[in-house]
Amino acid sequence: MLGQQLDTNSASISTRLADLGVRTLEHRTVDDDAEQIAGAIRAGIDRADLVIVSGGLGPTKDDLTRRALAMAMGTELVEDERALAEIMTWFAGRGRTMSQTNRVQALRPSGARSLTNPRGTAPGLHARIAYDGLPSGSVDVYCLPGPPRELLPMLEAEVLAPMRASGAVAVEQRILRTIGLGESSLAEKLGELMDRDRGVLVGTTASSGMVSVRIRCEGATTAELARGGVDEAAALVRERLGGVVFGEGDVTIADAVVSMLIERGESLTVAESCTGGLVGAAVTSVPGSSSVFGRGYLTYANEAKVELLGVEPGTLEQHGAVSGECAQEMALGALRASGADHAIAITGIAGPDGGSDDKPVGTVWIGIASAEGAVARRFGFPGERENVRALSVKFALAVLRQRLLGIDEPMLWQEEAL
Amino acid sequence: MLGQQLDTNSASISTRLADLGVRTLEHRTVDDDAEQIAGAIRAGIDRADLVIVSGGLGPTKDDLTRRALAMAMGTELVEDERALAEIMTWFAGRGRTMSQTNRVQALRPSGARSLTNPRGTAPGLHARIAYDGLPSGSVDVYCLPGPPRELLPMLEAEVLAPMRASGAVAVEQRILRTIGLGESSLAEKLGELMDRDRGVLVGTTASSGMVSVRIRCEGATTAELARGGVDEAAALVRERLGGVVFGEGDVTIADAVVSMLIERGESLTVAESCTGGLVGAAVTSVPGSSSVFGRGYLTYANEAKVELLGVEPGTLEQHGAVSGECAQEMALGALRASGADHAIAITGIAGPDGGSDDKPVGTVWIGIASAEGAVARRFGFPGERENVRALSVKFALAVLRQRLLGIDEPMLWQEEAL
Repeated sequence: MLGQQLDTNSASISTRLADLGVRTLEHRTVDDDAEQIAGAIRAGIDRADLVIVSGGLGPTKDDLTRRALAMAMGTELVEDERALAEIMTWFAGRGRTMSQTNRVQALRPSGARSLTNPRGTAPGLHARIAYDGLPSGSVDVYCLPGPPRELLPMLEAEVLAPMRASGAVAVEQRILRTIGLGESSLAEKLGELMDRDRGVLVGTTASSGMVSVRIRCEGATTAELARGGVDEAAALVRERLGGVVFGEGDVTIADAVVSMLIERGESLTVAESCTGGLVGAAVTSVPGSSSVFGRGYLTYANEAKVELLGVEPGTLEQHGAVSGECAQEMALGALRASGADHAIAITGIAGPDGGSDDKPVGTVWIGIASAEGAVARRFGFPGERENVRALSVKFALAVLRQRLLGIDEPMLWQEEAL
Repeated sequence: MLGQQLDTNSASISTRLADLGVRTLEHRTVDDDAEQIAGAIRAGIDRADLVIVSGGLGPTKDDLTRRALAMAMGTELVEDERALAEIMTWFAGRGRTMSQTNRVQALRPSGARSLTNPRGTAPGLHARIAYDGLPSGSVDVYCLPGPPRELLPMLEAEVLAPMRASGAVAVEQRILRTIGLGESSLAEKLGELMDRDRGVLVGTTASSGMVSVRIRCEGATTAELARGGVDEAAALVRERLGGVVFGEGDVTIADAVVSMLIERGESLTVAESCTGGLVGAAVTSVPGSSSVFGRGYLTYANEAKVELLGVEPGTLEQHGAVSGECAQEMALGALRASGADHAIAITGIAGPDGGSDDKPVGTVWIGIASAEGAVARRFGFPGERENVRALSVKFALAVLRQRLLGIDEPMLWQEEAL
């Protein structure tokens, strides 16, 4: 409640529930106070079929979720033998003995059950609470540990997997990721597919320079029918959007480019000025990228561009470091020096200083080189320093991807090509 | 409520209120439904002195906050002349005419007042609602636009600045940022300063490998006394913690290192393996870093380490690429090749593959070189690929910082030094 830590759990849980067609009615965050937590649980029970509580299952005095659930249920805390054994095993596996403090983690409200935590010492809790007002006659309350790396696996194993297995939901959803077109241009291409009265719904959301297309079928009577409907719609969407779709689900543009290069058995190098290493970092964030990426050059200063990449001093004098000519020479120089099959070069003005009327903050030239030669495109990215740098990385990878696919279409924010 | 967008507003608002000594009781997120929003506002009025609503002030059909506030107040919506004029001026200033859709943004509940939005078309709203149960006799409700760049300036101008000016609060807070020690070691050094019964409270929070020390004075009768108390405590904390404190407030370890280098007129280069560019990216994220950072080397592959940095093939054969010897040679090679005053080298196993019994995932060697020679330290970082990479960057900068300060103390997660 002090705002020191951003709550990412609510969004993670809601997204995963939405994937199963379960709508979230409310997120609520309260103080580390058992009465407050119990009140929030009771309010949830009064409104929803499912209540998920995260956090407060640790061993310290401000971990009050166990007690709060017992208060909401009107029962007492009892020690769970299996949970206690599991906590002891967890410590033993790490060569440590359980302290007395940790013993409280084995407590559960009488009438609730304890959930195994494979990633930590805090067991989860599950209570099924009778509630006459609902068709099901009961409300499920799950208490999960706060750290995402413990919460998410437990959510999957204890809540989502059983829900999926029960076949109670016939919702299918797929998200296609695109880069290069704005939301309104995409909507135009998708046309009637986006009408709200269709069986399969298609919607778009824009975020950080990319647009996601969400394809969703809720009304189908069986999972197979739902899947079929989504498959069909996804194929139509891909047909209309063409090369801007780079992947599905959690795929990033770096994942997509690295996969393509691995498949082609080709390699990549980078020559970065204003991004200062962000392209290399994005490429190497993909596990397995070592077969694609061997080396790269951070050439922030002009002398570095000349000495490491062989950029002509005359080019810098005549066109400046932020120019298509310089971007091309950087890319060709990196290609030559590294022996890679492809090179990405970025040179631009990230701000806050350095902008001019001709080349305002956000002006970025992206150069791409391969054995077939070099191209460069000028972009005018919106926002401030970190935004300009982040967009530069994504669009540089997107331009390389277009090149690998043999596409040459102007992109969102592109101003010029060389 | 679909979880597609992370709520950062709640944390931003709570942090700023906490700085003024205002405690947040609850965060609540509800659907775009006027009845739900009105219910949440009423619940807030029943519990708190101040209710802040964000979002839902746009021109479209799902922007329902205006209506919800009117419902909660039991009044009707009326058009605000000044707000209408401001919206028209906003459009005129951008060479556009106001569409009929935007006219609804000038509506406000009768009895509420409209707040100017210098950054967008959505005016805010403020209502003072009589409430007998409270000492003040009323509750303030503020409705602010959702986009952070519109919300934060309006929060400051309309809510925080008047609160500060009223002198109702005499709270002073300072946050010291540290890296290198764990939370329990810090707590030991801070000793009785952390007792909860003191006039100035000192607390710690750990996040992503760093520990922040929060120093806070709430009880003082004047702002000067509060400031004096915090100053005194901050000086004591710095004295006890020594070199691990690298800055205050929003300062990052990269900011701290770049400032030190600027002050000393010295330069830095990087030689990155498993981090693939993240150190360069962190350094160049600091505006003005160009006077410190000219070039860097991404040497992911062994051949790149040999060819670009002059690492001895024998070193790689005998000790492997993830070794103190290799880290030292990388740092010395980068120093030589770049002509910089300092070099950071990183080589490690970020995972998920590549770990062994000897060198499990998370094993990272950090090398630092300058004219005085090279050192290397081995760390065992917890977590998965992205966590290991992020910690490598922070601790590499922290090791360089220790070196610049002439300190040589073992750090959290450090296993060995060469």
